Amino acid sequence: MFRHQKNLQFEVKVDSPDPMLARQVQEVLGGQFGEMTVMMQYLFQGFNCRGEEKYKDMLMDIGTEEIGHVEMLCSLISQLMDGASPEDQSRAAEDPAMAAIMGGINPQHLLVSGLGGLPTNSNGVPWNGSYIVASGNLLADMRSNLHAETQGRLQVSRLYHMTKDEGVRATFRKMLARDRYHQYQWMAAIQELEEKNGVVVPASFPPEAELESQEEAYKFWNLSEGEESGQGPWANGTAPDGTGDFVYVSNPEPKGQVPKPKIPADHLHHDLGKHLVKNQQ
Amino acid sequence: MFRHQKNLQFEVKVDSPDPMLARQVQEVLGGQFGEMTVMMQYLFQGFNCRGEEKYKDMLMDIGTEEIGHVEMLCSLISQLMDGASPEDQSRAAEDPAMAAIMGGINPQHLLVSGLGGLPTNSNGVPWNGSYIVASGNLLADMRSNLHAETQGRLQVSRLYHMTKDEGVRATFRKMLARDRYHQYQWMAAIQELEEKNGVVVPASFPPEAELESQEEAYKFWNLSEGEESGQGPWANGTAPDGTGDFVYVSNPEPKGQVPKPKIPADHLHHDLGKHLVKNQQ
Amino acid sequence: MFRHQKNLQFEVKVDSPDPMLARQVQEVLGGQFGEMTVMMQYLFQGFNCRGEEKYKDMLMDIGTEEIGHVEMLCSLISQLMDGASPEDQSRAAEDPAMAAIMGGINPQHLLVSGLGGLPTNSNGVPWNGSYIVASGNLLADMRSNLHAETQGRLQVSRLYHMTKDEGVRATFRKMLARDRYHQYQWMAAIQELEEKNGVVVPASFPPEAELESQEEAYKFWNLSEGEESGQGPWANGTAPDGTGDFVYVSNPEPKGQVPKPKIPADHLHHDLGKHLVKNQQ
Amino acid sequence: MFRHQKNLQFEVKVDSPDPMLARQVQEVLGGQFGEMTVMMQYLFQGFNCRGEEKYKDMLMDIGTEEIGHVEMLCSLISQLMDGASPEDQSRAAEDPAMAAIMGGINPQHLLVSGLGGLPTNSNGVPWNGSYIVASGNLLADMRSNLHAETQGRLQVSRLYHMTKDEGVRATFRKMLARDRYHQYQWMAAIQELEEKNGVVVPASFPPEAELESQEEAYKFWNLSEGEESGQGPWANGTAPDGTGDFVYVSNPEPKGQVPKPKIPADHLHHDLGKHLVKNQQ
Amino acid sequence: MFRHQKNLQFEVKVDSPDPMLARQVQEVLGGQFGEMTVMMQYLFQGFNCRGEEKYKDMLMDIGTEEIGHVEMLCSLISQLMDGASPEDQSRAAEDPAMAAIMGGINPQHLLVSGLGGLPTNSNGVPWNGSYIVASGNLLADMRSNLHAETQGRLQVSRLYHMTKDEGVRATFRKMLARDRYHQYQWMAAIQELEEKNGVVVPASFPPEAELESQEEAYKFWNLSEGEESGQGPWANGTAPDGTGDFVYVSNPEPKGQVPKPKIPADHLHHDLGKHLVKNQQ
Amino acid sequence: MFRHQKNLQFEVKVDSPDPMLARQVQEVLGGQFGEMTVMMQYLFQGFNCRGEEKYKDMLMDIGTEEIGHVEMLCSLISQLMDGASPEDQSRAAEDPAMAAIMGGINPQHLLVSGLGGLPTNSNGVPWNGSYIVASGNLLADMRSNLHAETQGRLQVSRLYHMTKDEGVRATFRKMLARDRYHQYQWMAAIQELEEKNGVVVPASFPPEAELESQEEAYKFWNLSEGEESGQGPWANGTAPDGTGDFVYVSNPEPKGQVPKPKIPADHLHHDLGKHLVKNQQ
Repeated sequence: MFRHQKNLQFEVKVDSPDPMLARQVQEVLGGQFGEMTVMMQYLFQGFNCRGEEKYKDMLMDIGTEEIGHVEMLCSLISQLMDGASPEDQSRAAEDPAMAAIMGGINPQHLLVSGLGGLPTNSNGVPWNGSYIVASGNLLADMRSNLHAETQGRLQVSRLYHMTKDEGVRATFRKMLARDRYHQYQWMAAIQELEEKNGVVVPASFPPEAELESQEEAYKFWNLSEGEESGQGPWANGTAPDGTGDFVYVSNPEPKGQVPKPKIPADHLHHDLGKHLVKNQQ
Repeated sequence: MFRHQKNLQFEVKVDSPDPMLARQVQEVLGGQFGEMTVMMQYLFQGFNCRGEEKYKDMLMDIGTEEIGHVEMLCSLISQLMDGASPEDQSRAAEDPAMAAIMGGINPQHLLVSGLGGLPTNSNGVPWNGSYIVASGNLLADMRSNLHAETQGRLQVSRLYHMTKDEGVRATFRKMLARDRYHQYQWMAAIQELEEKNGVVVPASFPPEAELESQEEAYKFWNLSEGEESGQGPWANGTAPDGTGDFVYVSNPEPKGQVPKPKIPADHLHHDLGKHLVKNQQ
Repeated sequence: MFRHQKNLQFEVKVDSPDPMLARQVQEVLGGQFGEMTVMMQYLFQGFNCRGEEKYKDMLMDIGTEEIGHVEMLCSLISQLMDGASPEDQSRAAEDPAMAAIMGGINPQHLLVSGLGGLPTNSNGVPWNGSYIVASGNLLADMRSNLHAETQGRLQVSRLYHMTKDEGVRATFRKMLARDRYHQYQWMAAIQELEEKNGVVVPASFPPEAELESQEEAYKFWNLSEGEESGQGPWANGTAPDGTGDFVYVSNPEPKGQVPKPKIPADHLHHDLGKHLVKNQQ
Repeated sequence: MFRHQKNLQFEVKVDSPDPMLARQVQEVLGGQFGEMTVMMQYLFQGFNCRGEEKYKDMLMDIGTEEIGHVEMLCSLISQLMDGASPEDQSRAAEDPAMAAIMGGINPQHLLVSGLGGLPTNSNGVPWNGSYIVASGNLLADMRSNLHAETQGRLQVSRLYHMTKDEGVRATFRKMLARDRYHQYQWMAAIQELEEKNGVVVPASFPPEAELESQEEAYKFWNLSEGEESGQGPWANGTAPDGTGDFVYVSNPEPKGQVPKPKIPADHLHHDLGKHLVKNQQ
Repeated sequence: MFRHQKNLQFEVKVDSPDPMLARQVQEVLGGQFGEMTVMMQYLFQGFNCRGEEKYKDMLMDIGTEEIGHVEMLCSLISQLMDGASPEDQSRAAEDPAMAAIMGGINPQHLLVSGLGGLPTNSNGVPWNGSYIVASGNLLADMRSNLHAETQGRLQVSRLYHMTKDEGVRATFRKMLARDRYHQYQWMAAIQELEEKNGVVVPASFPPEAELESQEEAYKFWNLSEGEESGQGPWANGTAPDGTGDFVYVSNPEPKGQVPKPKIPADHLHHDLGKHLVKNQQ
Repeated sequence: MFRHQKNLQFEVKVDSPDPMLARQVQEVLGGQFGEMTVMMQYLFQGFNCRGEEKYKDMLMDIGTEEIGHVEMLCSLISQLMDGASPEDQSRAAEDPAMAAIMGGINPQHLLVSGLGGLPTNSNGVPWNGSYIVASGNLLADMRSNLHAETQGRLQVSRLYHMTKDEGVRATFRKMLARDRYHQYQWMAAIQELEEKNGVVVPASFPPEAELESQEEAYKFWNLSEGEESGQGPWANGTAPDGTGDFVYVSNPEPKGQVPKPKIPADHLHHDLGKHLVKNQQ
């Protein structure tokens, strides 16, 4: 069960409204790596978590923090939209400067939400559940979490330079600091889990089943012209878990068959009649 | 520019058809972490890659390999569907065993694709572009790649146990080996990039701008009841880049204001008339 | 079966083209509460309607009217786009005023539809079937209908002030009048159905099954800090159907267990090995 | 800012696992009117709320409660999936009873979430932001809220009869009781707002602008054959706000023009060449 | 403006209910090429049509017919679902035959629509606006229409064999006949337009602009191993409009540059620092 | 299996960056008929192809070519975005000309992709799998292919006039030439298949089953007011396959019943109680 406190986690302040920026901020609210994503991702991972309590508790801590980040961004967008009105559009017809602003805003901030934040990205595409991951494998999910915080901080960093408003920037700085911590957090958790389970997910796949195809687990297939890719650590040396050495295959040949699928039953209404079927075994 | 060879990368063989399995296999073809995702993700990262050639070349190598994995999975699904026909459904009305199978198949494998693979997941949801990431930041993207291969191998591992068909299992073993290598590959690349750039993405955000909010970059906010989360390495010790020590905040208090947004212009047609607006400053 | 008459239901007139407004108008054509939504919603409710003929007939009347509203809005958008051409964009490179306009238009109005209306909202997101509701419960659906007309009229009202074009405004006035009537219409139907069935949907859920948890049906759980929510009619007095009195629970405590889910089978490839599983019963 | 308590709001108990039911329960978790919808809807309405504090506080109270309902349903689904494993599918190939169960489950509960709840509906379609509404108009939004609780309770009622498991039914009874209260709650709020603002949304549209088209605000257009629709309260008597009397138009005629759109610029590459353009003015 | 007649265009009859078939039928109601698609496609093409009246009128005739086909399919699905109830699921727990049927039905037919048709495909994916096409170019759109009727008739043909119910089959026969006519209809229109405009769309692109790259307009690039593709009419002989002869390029070489994109501004936070940028010009 | 060559198929050159154009170009990259669509469509058709080798080989040739077109467009967009930076937005607040440009760009080109191409259309809607078709019927699919190339070339033609940049135009000219050839290619294939199979898809539907409803296969139903539609070749003369003559039905009457669906089981919680059910048989 959850509870809400009225104060925001951090202060959210806008020195002067900027409806164009409000549209951009939607990316880190309702985009692929926005706060809605990390909020829902950590909550689902926590709700579904089985096993050791410290992981579940930690996921619930941070998932709960992220609900408050969605709250902060809605407040930020509301302040950036303050004072905007439908009339701005009709004035735009006469004034290029106003037209430029109206062209840059999200029309739904006026028409649909009445100046509030929307559960969509910076292009108005609704947030959706396929942005998030909760797989029931802790290491897999914490790699997802590290990645999400990585992209999220990258986007907020870019956004930071899109404004000179000191109020907005101060809000972003808090978010950047938290995104920094959250990257640390998942790295620490990943390191612990990799030490226990090994670095390849899932580590639990039966080793005897892998034997037959083991050599393919160390090969780099050079399928793009040129051999620059041979200069990286993925092409030389030993696998991170020390189980084998990498092999750079400069000119790989396919190992499978040329597929020859069968002609289906007539009632599938393909048009592969007798005259068309010369290559069929 | 690309070229196609007729042989599959690896042999794809099915001992006996299994339309229910065909539906499950769609998850690793057209799902969130299926082969379409890694194919499109690596290609877009490669197409958009700026900077050192070895990264671009490597992305193009693996992106090109993954097109061939989509090809393999389509061949696998076609073979799993061999012999299925629309009549199966009408026979299902009379035969519970047939009904059970028909209930478990994807109706679109008959109606829409005529026994072929579909660009959708195991529930028929179409693959979409928001599954992929190509951010223009190498480290960010390689964390995404490691994560995608992690989830992908996890799903193929689960799928492996869903069949006893030795032909299918042999195909999966090749894919599992490649997914193992690809996890190694991204780990190696990540290690190299972290050594050059630091572990926090983006490392390039101006340090002086972070100062003000620096303390928030090391704090764990305990927002879920209980302190089990204090037992993990994310709550104790030093940040992975050694820049500070973690602080576990047992009972955190919010630091922001209670938001008091303004009443908008009348023509937004809120219903915040005079009688309703007592708390407004 | 349906028939089409060539005249529009009401006159649609544009004094002068305005491509930026055309983009905004898409919201009330193909957005969440646009005319496509009410058209498809009433038609599906009508097509699926079982029971008394007067409801079905009424749904078909209004669903049929709404097809004509989609027609009107397509005509409106076409007129707003009249004269626009691909060259406008190339001229925009040289002229800020033109750039402002081009920035504000929907590129698909030029590239995709050739100046016609699109089945999308004001941000170009395609209309989709999850916008509509047809549940097989009349009262439930008519509450949906009242709500859809409410949001629709709100959006058209906001749009009205976005233009000073008297032709466009006259068109909107007709739509606003119809949206007013349609709100009346659903209110009248709802009142009739509530009198027959009671106000809680579904009224038909077996009362004896509700007994055990009956007290929860009248409680307000105060889960956000502060007690301002205690000042409303939802926290005081008697339920609308007179079956009980509201109770304001100032400081509610959870009544459920702390969940302790089981460790799954090994072949799900979680990473909850022995070392990780201390809290498991 | 938010906080989490470890106990669930109400007890969630499953007497015996039922993977087919787990799939159906997804509808009320991640479907159009599932708990994710009401949770996100109330939170966004609360975050964006401007004006009188009691409304905002109330929205935050219930939005916060609903996060806990998502938590409860994830716990319910986890318990319903307990013991399921990938091997079930391979056994299905030999056993019709097992095949029937496997046909009825959501493959993603095994492959993607490892037995946990998913942010999708009962057919696996991801939850998305266009399910929710936060318009900045209180009365409009509370009509949406009443409607959402109406559909939600209807679906839980149907689901209730899909199981005889007494543990599951007890959980549903708590949810049904809360859905009953929430319907009451929004009705009470709506009544208060309608008394203040009038019943037509938005009440604030300038009355003088409506004059010209006023008569259309009381007319029923009979556009479907038959006059059964004339028997309802929407066709007779006085509008709910007493501003006019309904008029049933038995055989309505269109009042608009036959549209005659212009031929666009050549560079739009229509194919309306000279020979094709006879009807153009 | 539109009108509705109470009789269906053709009789819709089901000899005995079949909930599994109801799910499949959703494909031709709300799938990519279902009746909702042709209905909305022809209506939008008609609403947006500029130029000669006979095309617009014809599009409106058939678009109006298709609304009635959606109506017919909703009636078909309702009849196929007749008698189904939530209890069927709870009985499924005990009875494999019932489990098989429940596994095969769409859970939303019970939970969401109460036995009515849904605006979704056979896997429950909502219909969406990106299924349709209305480009403002008549020939382009009529090729789309021919194609849509082609896929639609193919799917209904497959569906036909999925049932032995003579009532259902008779309904499908009517639809198949109409889909046959509609294929004829678009072929006739296409032939007329191709005679007037030429076969390449758009014919109006300035011929002088094409000159430079003209040779590429007749070449087949053989980019897949093997030369079987050289045996078709696309590789030999003369273009359909007689403007040139096809050339089969057996071993094509790329003609473009190796792309060398620039390093972006620092504030985009790429990680292309000095050490990483050796290949940059 | 696939291979990649480093050179682009054709030269891609931009004389000067144009971020607004970059947004428009997304339509032909990741839109409904963009290069991602034809690439994935031809690859899936090829992967799933059964029967005569020359068709499969040809599909693989062109599918492989189209991967390279996606590559070219990513290169084009990268060049059009060169030099853009987050600061542009903050400068926009002060400069109308800059505001106009920023209003016209896709914010995700800065925030999400760091100046690279995105798998989305010109409004930022992600590409999705329901854009493509691979039905297992060759003639059906080749009609789809002709149509896709038709719309694609139409959109590139419109885009061509949106810029005066000679570099960009030269790139488009190559694409227009290839789209011209691809239209020829599918026409040639269609003609061959129609000669073998007949023009109606699927030709294989049993003729005896069609007899009963045969007359409906030649009738034009005039359901929109006016008889202009009677002037076209679809209303007069003989069907393209010579099997019958068209009949123009000026005033068609419905042939089906008025549907009277049954009242469902009580536990579906409709509200069709005794008082509401007068018209039920």
